[in-house]
Amino acid sequence: MTRITANEFSGATFRPQQFIQTERRNSKLNIEQLNLFVESSPENAQLTHDLITQVTMDPVLKTGSDYYELDKDQHRKATALKIAKMALYMEQDIQMAFKRYRNHDVVKSLQTKDDFPILTAKDLAVFDKRLSIISNQDPQLGTRIGVHLGLFGNCIRGNGTDKQIRYWLQEKGALFMKGIYGCFAMTELGHGSNVAQLQTRAEYNSKTDSFVINTPDLPATKWWIGGAAHSATHATVYARLIVNSKDYGVKTFVVPLRDPDTFQLLPGVFIGDIGAKMGRDGIDNGWIQFQSVVIPREYMLSRFTKVINDGDGGNPRVVTEPTLDQISGYSALLNGRVNMVMDSFRFGSKFATIATRYAVGRQQFAPDNDKTGKAPETQLINYPLHQYRVLPHLAVVYLISPVAFKLMDTYHTTLDQLYKVSSAGNKHQLKPVSIKLKDLFIDSASLKATNTWLVASLIDELRQACGGHGYSAYNGFGKGYNDWVVQCTWEGDNNILSLTSARSILKKYADLAKGNVQESESFRYLSPQLVMDVLKGTKSAKLETLEDYTEVWGIMLVKMLHYCANIVKQTKSTDSISKHLVMVSRFHAFHSMLRAYFLKLQSPSDSHVTDENSKKMLWNLYRLFSLYFIDKHSGEFQQFKVFTPDQISTLVQPKLMALLPEVRNECIALTDAFKLPDAMLNAPIGYYDGDIYNNYYNEVIKNNPPEADGPGKPEYHAHLTTMLRRGFQESEDLGKLGT
Amino acid sequence: MTRITANEFSGATFRPQQFIQTERRNSKLNIEQLNLFVESSPENAQLTHDLITQVTMDPVLKTGSDYYELDKDQHRKATALKIAKMALYMEQDIQMAFKRYRNHDVVKSLQTKDDFPILTAKDLAVFDKRLSIISNQDPQLGTRIGVHLGLFGNCIRGNGTDKQIRYWLQEKGALFMKGIYGCFAMTELGHGSNVAQLQTRAEYNSKTDSFVINTPDLPATKWWIGGAAHSATHATVYARLIVNSKDYGVKTFVVPLRDPDTFQLLPGVFIGDIGAKMGRDGIDNGWIQFQSVVIPREYMLSRFTKVINDGDGGNPRVVTEPTLDQISGYSALLNGRVNMVMDSFRFGSKFATIATRYAVGRQQFAPDNDKTGKAPETQLINYPLHQYRVLPHLAVVYLISPVAFKLMDTYHTTLDQLYKVSSAGNKHQLKPVSIKLKDLFIDSASLKATNTWLVASLIDELRQACGGHGYSAYNGFGKGYNDWVVQCTWEGDNNILSLTSARSILKKYADLAKGNVQESESFRYLSPQLVMDVLKGTKSAKLETLEDYTEVWGIMLVKMLHYCANIVKQTKSTDSISKHLVMVSRFHAFHSMLRAYFLKLQSPSDSHVTDENSKKMLWNLYRLFSLYFIDKHSGEFQQFKVFTPDQISTLVQPKLMALLPEVRNECIALTDAFKLPDAMLNAPIGYYDGDIYNNYYNEVIKNNPPEADGPGKPEYHAHLTTMLRRGFQESEDLGKLGT
Repeated sequence: MTRITANEFSGATFRPQQFIQTERRNSKLNIEQLNLFVESSPENAQLTHDLITQVTMDPVLKTGSDYYELDKDQHRKATALKIAKMALYMEQDIQMAFKRYRNHDVVKSLQTKDDFPILTAKDLAVFDKRLSIISNQDPQLGTRIGVHLGLFGNCIRGNGTDKQIRYWLQEKGALFMKGIYGCFAMTELGHGSNVAQLQTRAEYNSKTDSFVINTPDLPATKWWIGGAAHSATHATVYARLIVNSKDYGVKTFVVPLRDPDTFQLLPGVFIGDIGAKMGRDGIDNGWIQFQSVVIPREYMLSRFTKVINDGDGGNPRVVTEPTLDQISGYSALLNGRVNMVMDSFRFGSKFATIATRYAVGRQQFAPDNDKTGKAPETQLINYPLHQYRVLPHLAVVYLISPVAFKLMDTYHTTLDQLYKVSSAGNKHQLKPVSIKLKDLFIDSASLKATNTWLVASLIDELRQACGGHGYSAYNGFGKGYNDWVVQCTWEGDNNILSLTSARSILKKYADLAKGNVQESESFRYLSPQLVMDVLKGTKSAKLETLEDYTEVWGIMLVKMLHYCANIVKQTKSTDSISKHLVMVSRFHAFHSMLRAYFLKLQSPSDSHVTDENSKKMLWNLYRLFSLYFIDKHSGEFQQFKVFTPDQISTLVQPKLMALLPEVRNECIALTDAFKLPDAMLNAPIGYYDGDIYNNYYNEVIKNNPPEADGPGKPEYHAHLTTMLRRGFQESEDLGKLGT
Repeated sequence: MTRITANEFSGATFRPQQFIQTERRNSKLNIEQLNLFVESSPENAQLTHDLITQVTMDPVLKTGSDYYELDKDQHRKATALKIAKMALYMEQDIQMAFKRYRNHDVVKSLQTKDDFPILTAKDLAVFDKRLSIISNQDPQLGTRIGVHLGLFGNCIRGNGTDKQIRYWLQEKGALFMKGIYGCFAMTELGHGSNVAQLQTRAEYNSKTDSFVINTPDLPATKWWIGGAAHSATHATVYARLIVNSKDYGVKTFVVPLRDPDTFQLLPGVFIGDIGAKMGRDGIDNGWIQFQSVVIPREYMLSRFTKVINDGDGGNPRVVTEPTLDQISGYSALLNGRVNMVMDSFRFGSKFATIATRYAVGRQQFAPDNDKTGKAPETQLINYPLHQYRVLPHLAVVYLISPVAFKLMDTYHTTLDQLYKVSSAGNKHQLKPVSIKLKDLFIDSASLKATNTWLVASLIDELRQACGGHGYSAYNGFGKGYNDWVVQCTWEGDNNILSLTSARSILKKYADLAKGNVQESESFRYLSPQLVMDVLKGTKSAKLETLEDYTEVWGIMLVKMLHYCANIVKQTKSTDSISKHLVMVSRFHAFHSMLRAYFLKLQSPSDSHVTDENSKKMLWNLYRLFSLYFIDKHSGEFQQFKVFTPDQISTLVQPKLMALLPEVRNECIALTDAFKLPDAMLNAPIGYYDGDIYNNYYNEVIKNNPPEADGPGKPEYHAHLTTMLRRGFQESEDLGKLGT
């Protein structure tokens, strides 16, 4: 209230702050250890903390509630300013990574000295993490830099020769956000998922030893290209390689778009803005059409496919390394998928914190047994339905973290191996690396799809759990949802990714009969012993030991795969089971998440959790996650006879409902453990002090000063008063007009 | 392409237009009859058609793709202009309703003549429908007028005496959007669902025979009040009636806020803007605080509760009609809930049309058996998974229509009865009306919650089914979703509504044992015979006759209610079953929807469908709806032993999968039957001619002209070029600084 101090709450005696303080006082958890658990190590936890502090304090990077008021143009301008600031942080990060901070300009050496090493992912690790952290605060900024470094940069890294990598990324400066700014021109108006059918053409002209890039028709227009509308100077273009009229399929090319000094479009390049989107309006997505744009042969990325010109303009040859050529075409997308799993953890933790704190602070309705009418109203979190609506999402966030760190690790190891093996031309080592890469494709696809969907539901359901106040722009759910859900579509549509990964899993299952045993941790449920036991009926689902909570998903998967394999055998088609296959991918992800969490928590050195209460609560979250989704998917669990109907009623649901009050008792500590400062949450109903109503009111007032003395006429005042004041019509005497 | 004509598609040979034309050519359905079915009668269908034409053609009301570019202030201004235009249509609608168009100003008579009748809902029926139609085009406009007429107006109608109704709504002109513009000041910062605990105070001062309105503390601030920020001159305020220090609970009062001429705030009224929201930014939601605002006693709405002052300032008395007083407090919300079910039909039909047409026109990936690489790519709609993702939503839309019209009808009949009975002071007729009202509360709550949720999922899932193009603002899903989802929260949070209605249903179930038989069509499954047969096990679920597809839901409900009743008997609490109760409400809604659809389609005179193919397809949709949700809820169906696991695998799922290709064959005709012109869809990937790529490209270009010759420098150009051009740092020789 403008004229009443914050403490003067009367009447309904709301006490949000006291409630949150009480929770903190009563907590038996060790927040530091929990934080180490979700951040994976003391070093990581410290780094995360430092980076969060920097991005939320930096005067350019910080994001307040006015962020929710910006229109498209303002978002774009603010994002550009932030990109420029991030470039400065980047140089510092690289300087520090080389431990050559003093007396030496590392970037200069990287750009100018041929004997300086090519930058590795490890050298960029701090900046990558910085980007991941800032994406949690401002996702569109993360994307804009991510398109340049992660897509444009990784496309060159994955498909370019060592020389090309050094040239574009280091000498020309792309890796340091200097000299050139890149975009990733893969998707076309007519083709998204089906990359192999992209229609942009790159025709080789042997006389000039160059390629001519053309957009043959409207659907071949490059579309959705982040950064193209106003920022990018160069693009990695996916186009069909045509040599002597023969089509060699889709390859990648670096194509300059604009003069980096004047930003003038180069000859034959036509570009427009894609305009308004559901979210992330800070990204200048654009379309590009090419009209006979010429680039030198050397601009084709040629690690796995080369066009060789013998010099006399005669017979150019195309040389390809078939195994890796196809995989590498998609490898730029791998990085994005791996990052999206980490994003799911961070973005989810933000909204879980907001909704949990609101649920503890908000009261509504007196208890049923209150006859006096004077009892304080009940905190939302004390309603069993509300616990069911909020707490499983908290478990989801905890369960994403271990698998996200593990996937990131596997990604870096595998890509390093690929890079080394292919640089060394070590042919007989290609096979094991390509198997690892394929497994990584399955895992990252299934985890990307599953977790981006989980977080989309999380934001939506937690917004609803915050009632009307969840609909206010200032509490972040609206822009959060709008920004988030594109993750379910881009860099692999979730349904397509699920189908693709499930088909590969089904194939692995079928290969078991041929004696192909899976060694990877992700496919543990395909061990011959388990499969045999499940199919023979000697292994059945139970929920006794902690392992059981993971293993039920393995049993479920085996039974479903068996069912699907039979149908494919009969019908020679996966048509009738596509709906089941989407579930196979989802359940595979659940299994991986539970397994990674289990292994981590079981090991004191990995988990960093020695406190018994904290450990116990973390196991509660593990069980809650498993039970919540068994119950959600009880249709499948019963249909495939993993559990009987009675087990659902007497085992699964009672265990689930019994866990909720236990987790409820520590829900504030569990969210405090994410250590997200208010500035990162940017949602006043979720601020640390729990002073919901004052915080929220203050943000509203800050952005919308109350109506001053005197008429607060809106711009449209005249339209309304004219309407309200209009009088009666004088009735005509129609008789006067004759008949 | 800017320089290529639309017909020059080559390469991938996309033929979206031809695909849609082929569907239309091959259709065997009678679109006119289908349209009559969903619009409920020839008169209604014609009226809908005329109104759609007017709102999409009117130069002020029409809404093009530039709508998606507007910022908050622009939306507000555009909405005000549209309100003023709608006021003119309204006068015409009333004039026509009185069949006194010639030689007579009906509005003038209504405003000035005491012997003129009070306007009924029927007199306003055409305008109500106009409002419903325009809400489909511009939901925020619908809300702004809806708050004034539907909430402010119905609050007066439901709680005012006949004199008060005539005074405020007719003489002062509110009903004609003249003189005053109203808002509905119920919700407070601290109280949403719990209306009984609202804290604003209206204290009676017997000396001045007036009320003093006060906001006692910050959480008692009126919050979210649509129209308050800039437009409203008056509010119906929910406040605690205090007489001689005694609190009589929450009653309703008309409180003037602003001078209607100058828009100056009246003394003691403090107002601010709530600011940015997830959606519907065209609504000027505001907050209001009252500081000793005085209104005459007569401004309390006194149909059921009166303060009587004997004239000497001595002992004022409070007289209440208890049965109706409580119900009527909420009756203003009934109208909104009933309308939201109709909105669900209309809004759903829009997005079902867009996504279905896109699925038919969009191609991606060649068929699996194509070895040539030359086969045209497959239409999305031909993938079984895509059929499963899209077509059930089409069935959902069809299934909402009959129940929406039925509910609207019941609402009008019941409210008319209530009004007559209470005007006549006919005490012994109050009981049957109050029973009907209570049933209406249950049905409208469960249908509002269920259908607004269904449509939220529909928009979200269909957006994903349109891939990246669904994320473009110009295809409507983004704003559509953002505008829509508040329907799941306002005027009764969906979870709370579900719990409330399920508790009432559970009570009805318990009352059966006392011999209380339900006669209403909605509670048909509570017939003693059915309940007994189900519990004895002599009645089991099957899917043979058409009735069976409704009855399985009745059987499901009986089993679930039986289970819940037992738990309540044991635990004396509904705590552990609140999750099940939400399902009871949902299943009750499904049952009502299927029943209403069944009865309508079975009757040729109600359905207006005589064409056999059309009828057959409508039955397919009916079965598809039932099967889709049985499968979605197969967890419950198995757990409560309505179906066995094997029945799910061999009966439910095969039937479901077999229906999809049948519905797919007529999916274009089924969406054409909604008869939504392109201007209403406002989403180029869903336009009638199916020319997806050209239409979409053209809208993008219209709103974002391509980059002209010369540098297309964005506003932030300098920030980027400065960043890209930055040079190396000169390394300091730190040695010079000494140690």
